[in-house]
Amino acid sequence: MEEKAAVKKVVIFGATGSIGTQTVDVVKQLGGFEVVGISFGSNIEIASRIMRDLGVEYYFSKKDIGFGKRCQSVDELLEKTSPDIVVCAIPGFEGVKTTFSALRYAKRIALATKEALVCAGPFVKDLARENNVELIPVDSEHSAIFQLYEPHIEKILITASGGAVRDVPLERISELKPSDILKHPTWSMGGRITVDSATMVNKLFEVIEAHELFNLEYGRIDVKINRLSFIHGIVFLKDGVIKIHAGKPDMRIPIAYALTYPERKYHSYVADVEEFDLTLFDVERERYPLFFYGLELTKDNDDLAWRIALNAADEVAVNAFLNREIMFTDIEKVVRMTIEYILKQNISVQSIEDVYEIDNLARSYALKYVEKEVKK
Amino acid sequence: MEEKAAVKKVVIFGATGSIGTQTVDVVKQLGGFEVVGISFGSNIEIASRIMRDLGVEYYFSKKDIGFGKRCQSVDELLEKTSPDIVVCAIPGFEGVKTTFSALRYAKRIALATKEALVCAGPFVKDLARENNVELIPVDSEHSAIFQLYEPHIEKILITASGGAVRDVPLERISELKPSDILKHPTWSMGGRITVDSATMVNKLFEVIEAHELFNLEYGRIDVKINRLSFIHGIVFLKDGVIKIHAGKPDMRIPIAYALTYPERKYHSYVADVEEFDLTLFDVERERYPLFFYGLELTKDNDDLAWRIALNAADEVAVNAFLNREIMFTDIEKVVRMTIEYILKQNISVQSIEDVYEIDNLARSYALKYVEKEVKK
Repeated sequence: MEEKAAVKKVVIFGATGSIGTQTVDVVKQLGGFEVVGISFGSNIEIASRIMRDLGVEYYFSKKDIGFGKRCQSVDELLEKTSPDIVVCAIPGFEGVKTTFSALRYAKRIALATKEALVCAGPFVKDLARENNVELIPVDSEHSAIFQLYEPHIEKILITASGGAVRDVPLERISELKPSDILKHPTWSMGGRITVDSATMVNKLFEVIEAHELFNLEYGRIDVKINRLSFIHGIVFLKDGVIKIHAGKPDMRIPIAYALTYPERKYHSYVADVEEFDLTLFDVERERYPLFFYGLELTKDNDDLAWRIALNAADEVAVNAFLNREIMFTDIEKVVRMTIEYILKQNISVQSIEDVYEIDNLARSYALKYVEKEVKK
Repeated sequence: MEEKAAVKKVVIFGATGSIGTQTVDVVKQLGGFEVVGISFGSNIEIASRIMRDLGVEYYFSKKDIGFGKRCQSVDELLEKTSPDIVVCAIPGFEGVKTTFSALRYAKRIALATKEALVCAGPFVKDLARENNVELIPVDSEHSAIFQLYEPHIEKILITASGGAVRDVPLERISELKPSDILKHPTWSMGGRITVDSATMVNKLFEVIEAHELFNLEYGRIDVKINRLSFIHGIVFLKDGVIKIHAGKPDMRIPIAYALTYPERKYHSYVADVEEFDLTLFDVERERYPLFFYGLELTKDNDDLAWRIALNAADEVAVNAFLNREIMFTDIEKVVRMTIEYILKQNISVQSIEDVYEIDNLARSYALKYVEKEVKK
């Protein structure tokens, strides 16, 4: 007889996004979890459906949905609900602040907000340690490495699909429109992350996240292309053993794992895997210049300034691209120029306040750069 | 500071064979292990070298090597040496008896003798449980599954190289001579197991071993060809996650793991894996009839009689083939006829004594069959 476990209280930050709605799917299948609160940006329709569907009591949003208990801040939402688990799935730098709030209230964070570790990794980890909060990755690649993790790792490898540009002739990449870039070959995700997959800035973020999560030097983190996103991560151990984590690209699997770890309760097994794609390709340097530029920066800088600038400038540039203000290949220019500008300031990041300050600085610079230099 | 662990005392059964000599290599690299006793068959030269090289005190063999302390039986060797770990690497049915001796004296058995689980699985497991002996597999495939093991397994997959016949036109297989069959494409192993790889009787043994070791129904154990033996095993989990264990085919890696588990102390990492072969092929029914015949038998029979007969007849037939008394394709006939004969006797296997009796019966039948029907 299995012991009946207490129902775990879950708060979802970013409930109406791609990760948020898939978390709702997972919670429905799993049982044993109760969504006690959500936060969302602007999608009242989806938010209302989730609230009704799961009987959620509290929410935080700038928008009023007309029923349920509305909190005035994320902190109030957390205080009212005392969650066991917070799913941090707010995309962009906005998610950093809410992750810090979650770190003060939750027992476990299921972390999907990449920016938290990219922009503020050491502060996130310090606070998690202090407050005894479990930090479980939701990204499929990091969930894979987390699931394979053991001591004596010599190297890890995470995979990339190569995004929408992987088969486009190099000379035609600059012509690609948002509608072209938003066709991700394997994963169904939000807008920015889909563009970030095409530039592989997303993979650069993931290299940084892996560096933080697993305390691995950058030289021990490798990236290869797996066209069907069937392989998610590989660990290479001291004794020559190689462990590979694979499966269909379905974010509900790592989301469920982050909720149920160390157990595995979600059911998504299929007897015959149709696309058993275990082929790995090198990442082409000419196709993903921003990715390689970032990798170069990891070599000399274990500080946060360039990482914060990378994220801020990328947010600005991707937004401008999606609004058809700049070309796809201009994203690289905006990001490079902003990072170079920030590095020139020689700011040492000592606190989370410094993180916010550099983000501001970088964001303003990037916006101005888009306005003056790139926009036509 | 790491705590200094006590030196572990190791006895190697079958020290001069392929697994035995590789265990010696591993022990030399690892440190922290002392080989206190060995058993061997007839290779005095290698046995003497190991004894001198590692300063081994005791040995058991039918042959006198002229120095060291010679025991009169395996049990005396175990009593004199009180080993922490016994590496059971005596090939063939002979290894079954010695494994039972080891189960009465050792704290851990590093099990390479396939016949122990194939012919006497339930008795081996019962005795291990009673005496609180850890049973750690040495076979690369089972070590792989053991390393990936966790609850909620839906299916496992172990790989086969396909042995020496995999690329031979079907109509020419019957002409193959021992010298052709002994060319294994990936692993360097003893004679019988190399022939067993060509018939895939070895893989049939491994399916049975996996069934016993991991308590999995046969329907949950799959076999595919991986030409370079780079993939060793795969587990398919309930939630859709697939974990793959890979690495160069080098038995020293699983041997070391069986010695050091749960730690991983052996060093065999190479930065650039040359042959990253992750391609899996189906096993051809026409090419490996004995393998499929055995798989059919697993469906109806969870008794031991046919498994004991399989092993006994295969030993006899492989021996006859290696002595050029029968053709390669005759191995199948000998094994089939012997199994059918034993199944007709309707003997229920209730004890290890019954195991020995059926082995005898099957062996005599197979020898007679070779003599009368096949030998020309």
